Amino acid sequence: MADEKTQIRFGILGCAEIARKVCRAIHLSPNSILHAISSRSIQKAKQFAIKNSLPETLKLYGSYEEVLDDPFVDAVYVPLPTSLHVKWAVLAAEKKKHVLLEKPTALNVGELDRILDACRSNGVQFMDGSMWYHHPRTTRLKEFISDPNLFGQVKTVFIFVNAGLMFKSFWRKIYDMDLSSSFFPPPQFFENNIRTKADLDSFGALGDAGWYCIGAIMWAMNYKLPTTVTASPATIFNSNGVIMSTTVAFHWEQEGTIATFYCSFLSHETMDVAVLGSKGSFHVEDLIIPYEESSASFSFTSGAAFVNMQLGWNMKDKEVQVHNELPQEALMIKEFSRLVKGIKDSKIGPDTKWGDISRSSQVVLDAVKSSIDIGFKMVYI
Amino acid sequence: MADEKTQIRFGILGCAEIARKVCRAIHLSPNSILHAISSRSIQKAKQFAIKNSLPETLKLYGSYEEVLDDPFVDAVYVPLPTSLHVKWAVLAAEKKKHVLLEKPTALNVGELDRILDACRSNGVQFMDGSMWYHHPRTTRLKEFISDPNLFGQVKTVFIFVNAGLMFKSFWRKIYDMDLSSSFFPPPQFFENNIRTKADLDSFGALGDAGWYCIGAIMWAMNYKLPTTVTASPATIFNSNGVIMSTTVAFHWEQEGTIATFYCSFLSHETMDVAVLGSKGSFHVEDLIIPYEESSASFSFTSGAAFVNMQLGWNMKDKEVQVHNELPQEALMIKEFSRLVKGIKDSKIGPDTKWGDISRSSQVVLDAVKSSIDIGFKMVYI
Repeated sequence: MADEKTQIRFGILGCAEIARKVCRAIHLSPNSILHAISSRSIQKAKQFAIKNSLPETLKLYGSYEEVLDDPFVDAVYVPLPTSLHVKWAVLAAEKKKHVLLEKPTALNVGELDRILDACRSNGVQFMDGSMWYHHPRTTRLKEFISDPNLFGQVKTVFIFVNAGLMFKSFWRKIYDMDLSSSFFPPPQFFENNIRTKADLDSFGALGDAGWYCIGAIMWAMNYKLPTTVTASPATIFNSNGVIMSTTVAFHWEQEGTIATFYCSFLSHETMDVAVLGSKGSFHVEDLIIPYEESSASFSFTSGAAFVNMQLGWNMKDKEVQVHNELPQEALMIKEFSRLVKGIKDSKIGPDTKWGDISRSSQVVLDAVKSSIDIGFKMVYI
Repeated sequence: MADEKTQIRFGILGCAEIARKVCRAIHLSPNSILHAISSRSIQKAKQFAIKNSLPETLKLYGSYEEVLDDPFVDAVYVPLPTSLHVKWAVLAAEKKKHVLLEKPTALNVGELDRILDACRSNGVQFMDGSMWYHHPRTTRLKEFISDPNLFGQVKTVFIFVNAGLMFKSFWRKIYDMDLSSSFFPPPQFFENNIRTKADLDSFGALGDAGWYCIGAIMWAMNYKLPTTVTASPATIFNSNGVIMSTTVAFHWEQEGTIATFYCSFLSHETMDVAVLGSKGSFHVEDLIIPYEESSASFSFTSGAAFVNMQLGWNMKDKEVQVHNELPQEALMIKEFSRLVKGIKDSKIGPDTKWGDISRSSQVVLDAVKSSIDIGFKMVYI
């Protein structure tokens, strides 16, 4: 076990549902410890601690400022609504706290740049809370699609992510409903959930499921920005003007590559990613949250061709299982804390890679929003 | 075994590569027999018969007309280039031959209507040569997506089909190349192959792989025409102006459904179909030609949701294996011959379902071509 004194101490701003998962991840990660949580009222913070059986030694605060002023806090995790990110992430950086920020990172790239600048000038680490990057399956997939002989050049990417049921427990809590496994959110859900209120997060499904789609596409394209972004008129809004589902196409002119994603609150739960290359292809059904905690799979083919008279193929797709010692969210915390530890020990400076990754997604997210706002026209980046 | 006298006797117009597969399918189907083949020269017909070990009793003709004039021929299979379909299919119908026509069925829906009219007025059966409709897996998938509780409403469809390597044996024959399993066609291929010559088949990848994409999307939508069709500017042409790859989006305004396909000659071989519904989803990697001849699989989920704290799911995807007694192309011939037999015995009239299915794909194909021709603008159907 790691020495408690060398562990990175986390404070959490806000008691959102997702914070429960990150609390557990901090606990599971050997180089991290949860030091403080906060909410806008001390009562809410207490309830959260009790409900999640957090240790009694945990500091509970009735305001976010108190976490930032706690000298024992090394890093903060910020699961606040998107519209509050710029204020609290900048303040955290100014207080020399390392920043793990929930996605979408900001309402626009201008805001994100303020956050990244604050982190840079204060020498603190930045990372957004996208967990799937940290799963060893993602590393394996990257090796595969980077292999010029096995995969070749990326030709097209198709992704759909639906997170309509993501808030089932939230919904159950609010409405005390008996939810079967085939639960589908009633219409009010889409009017009341935080992600569907324009003042808190106008992106809706685009900022939630769409953030993952954009991230996965950018990942597949080595974070090279597309030439153009075009949202489809087949975009559905709720009565607050928040995006409930949309389909978007990206085009890399030089490479001739096209990527299309569908993100939604309105469909069956899914996280389907298929990437087709000149020599190989792969498919994942659970990219963002693996079906199981301790392993995840993908299927691929390479050099597939039809055999004599097109009666069949020269191969079937192969399934690869990748085991992970820790859940992906704990791997994220472990990596973040490793970077923070290096900075604390003055061995390394902040790793700008994670900010660059977030920024590429934010730039594309902004372009998608622009395309929607100007009537689903093509936007050049 | 079926009595030879009751079997449907086929004649084939042209000795295209695909004809080899259909010869075998006619042989495998219990209610069919191959009676005659033809080519523009008797020499080519003879070579084809020898190469494929066809029986010596087979009639060999040096012109297509002779097949149509053979009174023993009940039905013709027409694998000629698309530009020749209207002439030969209409002539065949007028000679009272039932018509099994390779896809794409025609250069435009006007031509197809002439073919369908000729079949109707002459009381002969029409069917296009899309084999995958006849696989029992397709029937199982249809049951699944038609189930309002398990699947719900179709939200989005993603398909990519690449057939760049389909003509490997053709290519090998022409250039006498030593082709490894990771063979990728050299650039000349795309200039010389029949599917890439504008005078014979201007659709290119759109008529070939794209026909399947359109067919599968229309199948998923119960053949309801989309409101709009929009091709992406990310379309690649060869020097003859033939489509090498394209991406196209369909929108059903009333349903809010969107479908996107990518068809290509330029990628890894693949036939990836994913359909997402409000309550379920499925995925198939080998829809058009199954990996194996005697069985095929699909994976699906229904009622999937994230469990406590989004640490995982309430289920994994399930894989379903569907066995088939005959290869799908033989099932196609069997069904076609069953319909022809019914007409011959005056028990049933021609089944217009297959013509309607072909026509829906042809209407959409025309719209895609229009969208490309007018600069990738949205086309209303």
